[in-house]
Amino acid sequence: MSGVMELLPLEQVAFEGMIDVIRREFERFGYLPIATPAMELTEVLLRKTGGETERQVYLVQSTGSAEQGDDPDLALRFDLTVPLARYVAEHEHQLSFPFRRHQIQPVYRGERPQRGRYREFYQCDIDVIDRNELSLRFDAEIPAVINSVFAALDFGEFVIRLNSRRLLAGLMEKLEIEPHVAALRELDRLDRQGPENVIASLSKIGVTNDAAQRFLELAATGLRTGSDAFTLLDEIGGDNDLLKQGVDEMRAVLTLVREWGVSEHRFGLDLSIARGLDYYTGTVYETTLVAHPELGSICSGGRYDDLAGQYTKSRLPGVGISIGLSRLFWQLQNADLLPAAKSTVEVLVGLLDDAGLPEALRIAAELRDAGVNTESVLVPDRIGNQLKFAAKNGIDLYVVAGENERQRGEVLVRNLRTQTQASADRKDVVAAVQAQ
Amino acid sequence: MSGVMELLPLEQVAFEGMIDVIRREFERFGYLPIATPAMELTEVLLRKTGGETERQVYLVQSTGSAEQGDDPDLALRFDLTVPLARYVAEHEHQLSFPFRRHQIQPVYRGERPQRGRYREFYQCDIDVIDRNELSLRFDAEIPAVINSVFAALDFGEFVIRLNSRRLLAGLMEKLEIEPHVAALRELDRLDRQGPENVIASLSKIGVTNDAAQRFLELAATGLRTGSDAFTLLDEIGGDNDLLKQGVDEMRAVLTLVREWGVSEHRFGLDLSIARGLDYYTGTVYETTLVAHPELGSICSGGRYDDLAGQYTKSRLPGVGISIGLSRLFWQLQNADLLPAAKSTVEVLVGLLDDAGLPEALRIAAELRDAGVNTESVLVPDRIGNQLKFAAKNGIDLYVVAGENERQRGEVLVRNLRTQTQASADRKDVVAAVQAQ
Repeated sequence: MSGVMELLPLEQVAFEGMIDVIRREFERFGYLPIATPAMELTEVLLRKTGGETERQVYLVQSTGSAEQGDDPDLALRFDLTVPLARYVAEHEHQLSFPFRRHQIQPVYRGERPQRGRYREFYQCDIDVIDRNELSLRFDAEIPAVINSVFAALDFGEFVIRLNSRRLLAGLMEKLEIEPHVAALRELDRLDRQGPENVIASLSKIGVTNDAAQRFLELAATGLRTGSDAFTLLDEIGGDNDLLKQGVDEMRAVLTLVREWGVSEHRFGLDLSIARGLDYYTGTVYETTLVAHPELGSICSGGRYDDLAGQYTKSRLPGVGISIGLSRLFWQLQNADLLPAAKSTVEVLVGLLDDAGLPEALRIAAELRDAGVNTESVLVPDRIGNQLKFAAKNGIDLYVVAGENERQRGEVLVRNLRTQTQASADRKDVVAAVQAQ
Repeated sequence: MSGVMELLPLEQVAFEGMIDVIRREFERFGYLPIATPAMELTEVLLRKTGGETERQVYLVQSTGSAEQGDDPDLALRFDLTVPLARYVAEHEHQLSFPFRRHQIQPVYRGERPQRGRYREFYQCDIDVIDRNELSLRFDAEIPAVINSVFAALDFGEFVIRLNSRRLLAGLMEKLEIEPHVAALRELDRLDRQGPENVIASLSKIGVTNDAAQRFLELAATGLRTGSDAFTLLDEIGGDNDLLKQGVDEMRAVLTLVREWGVSEHRFGLDLSIARGLDYYTGTVYETTLVAHPELGSICSGGRYDDLAGQYTKSRLPGVGISIGLSRLFWQLQNADLLPAAKSTVEVLVGLLDDAGLPEALRIAAELRDAGVNTESVLVPDRIGNQLKFAAKNGIDLYVVAGENERQRGEVLVRNLRTQTQASADRKDVVAAVQAQ
């Protein structure tokens, strides 16, 4: 089936290893797991969307219901934000606020398949939701989590780019650029379209060339880290209330991110970051790999005023980010940034003769009891074939007790990584393996 | 939405804890992870099924495709066996055999919702697949894995019931019961229907009362563990080739399970185990909790001759089991067998005044660096409210440095489980937490 990512076992091990790291770092900061059903009621899922997204939703209907001629009343989630909104609205009185949640699940979009774009793909999201008001301090926690996640994933240096939609709105007010949301959407395309095309598009919505150019000049200042970010904020100043508020907030957030312990070179202000989505209202985030800017943002998000206005009367402001893991995995694989495939199996216990089976089973059981992931060969074969199986499947250690070893009360331990082997006392098999 | 399981965060922690244990034990025995897309091509998914299952399949179609009036060509997987068959057939030449795989994913059935039956539910499957032939020795590995999984899950004593479809077929041949598959399906209902109803149903397919009664008498011998199992196998004898083969195989498997190190009281022969599914051909398994037989089988499976005949010319025999985790979780919750809800968050670092924020952030960072999952209070509040938050959310430890503590260079560490608290030197905060 085209347009879906299906991995071979060792690739799957690598993929699940990434999920484990991300989940561990999310939970290190106190984010609790939730999982929502793949299917939501169509009326819930489509309440917020329109246009292209609506065309891309997967409708779901049981064969029985289809035969009866009913309309589909279920659809697959296309992101994790709408399900979160429905979840928080539905369980509001059983949750504690501020509510920090993580959610790592596949989402579904009926897109035309293309390289690296999938119809089923994993998203890894965190959000903090509070009732009525959410302190700006949470805007600074998010980069701290991003920092821990990508440091732990260890794909090389990265930088978290922050900006403020409020600051951008203030700038646009100053430059008399209207309407803000449409202009921001154009700014978000700057990377892909280049300045000339963006100026042309802005002119179509009524922005003068002069204003557009001054706006893009500011955006072109690029990433400013450390004290350079604060200098830039000082330069922007506070010509109007919106701008002043945006600048003050950004200053406060950047100051706090430092207090969260994120290194200065790992985050900064980037006025070109806009995020296309309408619902962001304050701080926005993008994260890029320093050595691989061509991958684009690998982790993005922002602050929003009200998560679930469609489903509840409570005002629920929040801030969060999302990692598009399937796409990131595909990008890393293509850029050769994934480490060599390693198995979850640590030891293959071989078998050279039928008489050796009981002893081979005991050896494997001892290793497993010691917490070592151990696969057993159950049908005798030539040792060369068994070593080939181990090598092909990314298993580093091979342990066997052939007839000679059994007579001498020994086992043979072969390390396929270092290409060395040694005999060990049968009773020391666990220690011999753990010493490798 | 009815008919789906959606958990609150602390329940989700418990559920994911079970998945983690199951995955760890699967991997301890060398089973490799795979994941398949939720959607398969309709023609692939429906090739094998018919009747009721076909009515229960969820068809999937993008809104765009539906508008064009196309027929849905995608459907959601309803088990993990059909996707495994398609996966192995598709990737056969990149896989190594014997292929041990585990797969832990939700499956979808358009059933009428009822208590404890879900339209989306998690299955945790392992299977070993080989080409052409799969040694009987693998039939004995499966109970060893089941044993490790349920010992680690720690829900009380359990017993793994083994039987052989071949042995049952031999018995039916001896008793002149025909057709075998239909009769086995009736035997599978013995638990729920009682012997009289089963005899009546058997009579409808042409089985004489006398034969049905003798068949059910044998099934009624119930579970036989240890040497009792072998005595029963000796009594059954080998009146025909099928029966002799079935008895010999069962004897070999039971002998081997013991050599895999499974305690004698944890497995045995139970002639009433039939498994309803047509495709089992040899050993079959069910697992029950000793103190809770009313939960029925919590882990079932068996041996089959050919996994993927629909998709490949290769003959791929296999053996495997499945844990229906969502249903099991619901049953355990209802039977009050789940431990008290505990959070993934280990420490809540409190905040009593704005001036304390930098210090609170540093304390939290030190704890996280030491691997402790730590949530930070970011907006000052009364200590009572913060302790209430921790208690309600299953967080055991609360650490705070109020103005007094900061002046004295101390922190307060409160253990909500033991209801004790003590001051510690600020610099020893990690040790003080780890000592709890």
